[in-house]
Amino acid sequence: MSTKAAVYRGNKTFTLEGKEVPPPGPGEVQIDVAYCGICGTDLHIYLGHMDQRVGFKRTIGHEMSGIISAIGEGVTGLSAGQHVVVRPLDHCGNCPACNAGHEHICHNLKFIGIDTEGAFQEKWNVPSHTIHVLPDELDLSHAALIEPLAVACHDVKRGRVAKGEDVLVIGGGPIGMLVALVARHAGGNVTISEINENRLAYAAKLGFAALNPRETDVAKVIHERTGGKGADVVFEVSGSQPGVDLMTDAAATRGRIVMVAIHATKPQIDLFRFFWRELELSGARVYHKKDYDEAMRLLAEGVVDCKSFITDIQPLDAIQGAFEALTSNPNAMKSMIRISEGAS
Amino acid sequence: MSTKAAVYRGNKTFTLEGKEVPPPGPGEVQIDVAYCGICGTDLHIYLGHMDQRVGFKRTIGHEMSGIISAIGEGVTGLSAGQHVVVRPLDHCGNCPACNAGHEHICHNLKFIGIDTEGAFQEKWNVPSHTIHVLPDELDLSHAALIEPLAVACHDVKRGRVAKGEDVLVIGGGPIGMLVALVARHAGGNVTISEINENRLAYAAKLGFAALNPRETDVAKVIHERTGGKGADVVFEVSGSQPGVDLMTDAAATRGRIVMVAIHATKPQIDLFRFFWRELELSGARVYHKKDYDEAMRLLAEGVVDCKSFITDIQPLDAIQGAFEALTSNPNAMKSMIRISEGAS
Repeated sequence: MSTKAAVYRGNKTFTLEGKEVPPPGPGEVQIDVAYCGICGTDLHIYLGHMDQRVGFKRTIGHEMSGIISAIGEGVTGLSAGQHVVVRPLDHCGNCPACNAGHEHICHNLKFIGIDTEGAFQEKWNVPSHTIHVLPDELDLSHAALIEPLAVACHDVKRGRVAKGEDVLVIGGGPIGMLVALVARHAGGNVTISEINENRLAYAAKLGFAALNPRETDVAKVIHERTGGKGADVVFEVSGSQPGVDLMTDAAATRGRIVMVAIHATKPQIDLFRFFWRELELSGARVYHKKDYDEAMRLLAEGVVDCKSFITDIQPLDAIQGAFEALTSNPNAMKSMIRISEGAS
Repeated sequence: MSTKAAVYRGNKTFTLEGKEVPPPGPGEVQIDVAYCGICGTDLHIYLGHMDQRVGFKRTIGHEMSGIISAIGEGVTGLSAGQHVVVRPLDHCGNCPACNAGHEHICHNLKFIGIDTEGAFQEKWNVPSHTIHVLPDELDLSHAALIEPLAVACHDVKRGRVAKGEDVLVIGGGPIGMLVALVARHAGGNVTISEINENRLAYAAKLGFAALNPRETDVAKVIHERTGGKGADVVFEVSGSQPGVDLMTDAAATRGRIVMVAIHATKPQIDLFRFFWRELELSGARVYHKKDYDEAMRLLAEGVVDCKSFITDIQPLDAIQGAFEALTSNPNAMKSMIRISEGAS
């Protein structure tokens, strides 16, 4: 079957191509992709940072929603017409991480849509174990937020945010903002540190305390507001040296810091502070199955104001322009691509 | 009452002085100090690194044992003649850390023997709440190891070492060696990374796998020996950049790293690895009351070979020479000062 697909060809270029997609193989399902959001990682790929891993003939995309169109041999419990999202992780089942029950960070993990074909195409075959079935009434454009929301659920779980705790989120981009929303839902008093004024305004509109670290000594404010205690939980989502400095400065004694950001270089860290205040740092990467379940629940509960969070929706034909716009516009929260004309 | 005391006068100098020690005040006990070990922190003080905090008229020392000689007003449950050690922490009881139950890292913590008078003197008054009573049969020179052993117990608890886990200790000085012993007692398979050949030989004599990171790729060996898994728990006790590099390289997926060392500068850290493998880093400082109880238990069980661990015991009169020797001799494990002539 021929399908329209965006193919990453290197050099900041996607081409729209007709592609043959076979029927779903054993253990697979085929999905009519409805929507697919543009992830920060997709932007890195577009900018050429991951060419060695991705190559120059890949269809990327993983923040998706869609409708099952066909079922492969041996797949049970799923049927055509079901609204679904895909948890885009394919683990090996046989490495030390899998053996220890950490399949989501398998040593040989294939990230579907990066290491294998992704969702910026009309018809998409995926392993059936990656499928989460949606309630029919959930808007499919909103459902495409489940993947990044599951990241945030995983991060907040790693930070063990409890009711009444003081939380600092460093970096108010899409993931930082979702982390803030999930942490607030968990009962945290959340402050966001962000340098972009438009994002600060959006954070304030969502009801968060929002501070610009270029204008305010954020750690000092946090300590003042908490009677000298500091933030019980800090999420480092900025990927910057000032963010790393702030995370140790702002944390309470025994404070938990969650490393959400991808630091390409090795920043300097105040390890003395780790010793002195018995701080804790935990890395957090992607999600478990149950994080997806929780993300679906929180989305249904309205924890995310999807309408304002989705900055724009453009058709697949406009994907090149959508990526170009994002590189010049750090104000956007979530840019989304409508893949299927039938998507409502 | 006049007592003989070593007084730190700055410029790498202790003077031995006669000092008036008053009777124990309300809530205090007076101890005839028997032995006091030389801690790494004492060496830092001697070398002038902490002059601003310590001043030039302080008697330092805190790794001690002794016998109660007098009891102050209002002290119950203790009596003259009891063999004791002191847990040298005096907390404020009223800061965010104390309020959260972390008195041992109180924001206003006074470390007895650094911030207040210490144990390199014959008669020593301390708050009664710091006292742990020893079994009479315990050798008082061995008992002076309880303080550093309690540090190790606290570190191993922070690392949650479980039976059968692979453990790497980076740095085989006195604290690293005690951490290794306690981790092995908790069931860990312990490897020690250390650059000093004499300490390596001692580690091997104690039955540990001992590697010199200047000759061996320690992370590679750890991964090979664990089927590609890595170390479940890593203790960073070296305080060095190569140690910090090794801690992330050697750790397993979801590995726990414990920051025992005091890093005076801010080293560079592979935060990407924290994200990618969901590593955990926990600072560990001093001890709880129950860490002291455990250290006393482990010492009684013979977990530490005190005879080989105590490198030398010298009289108080020789304290200056003992400190001089330690700065030129990184081979020693524990150098100890015999304070009271009556100490057996």
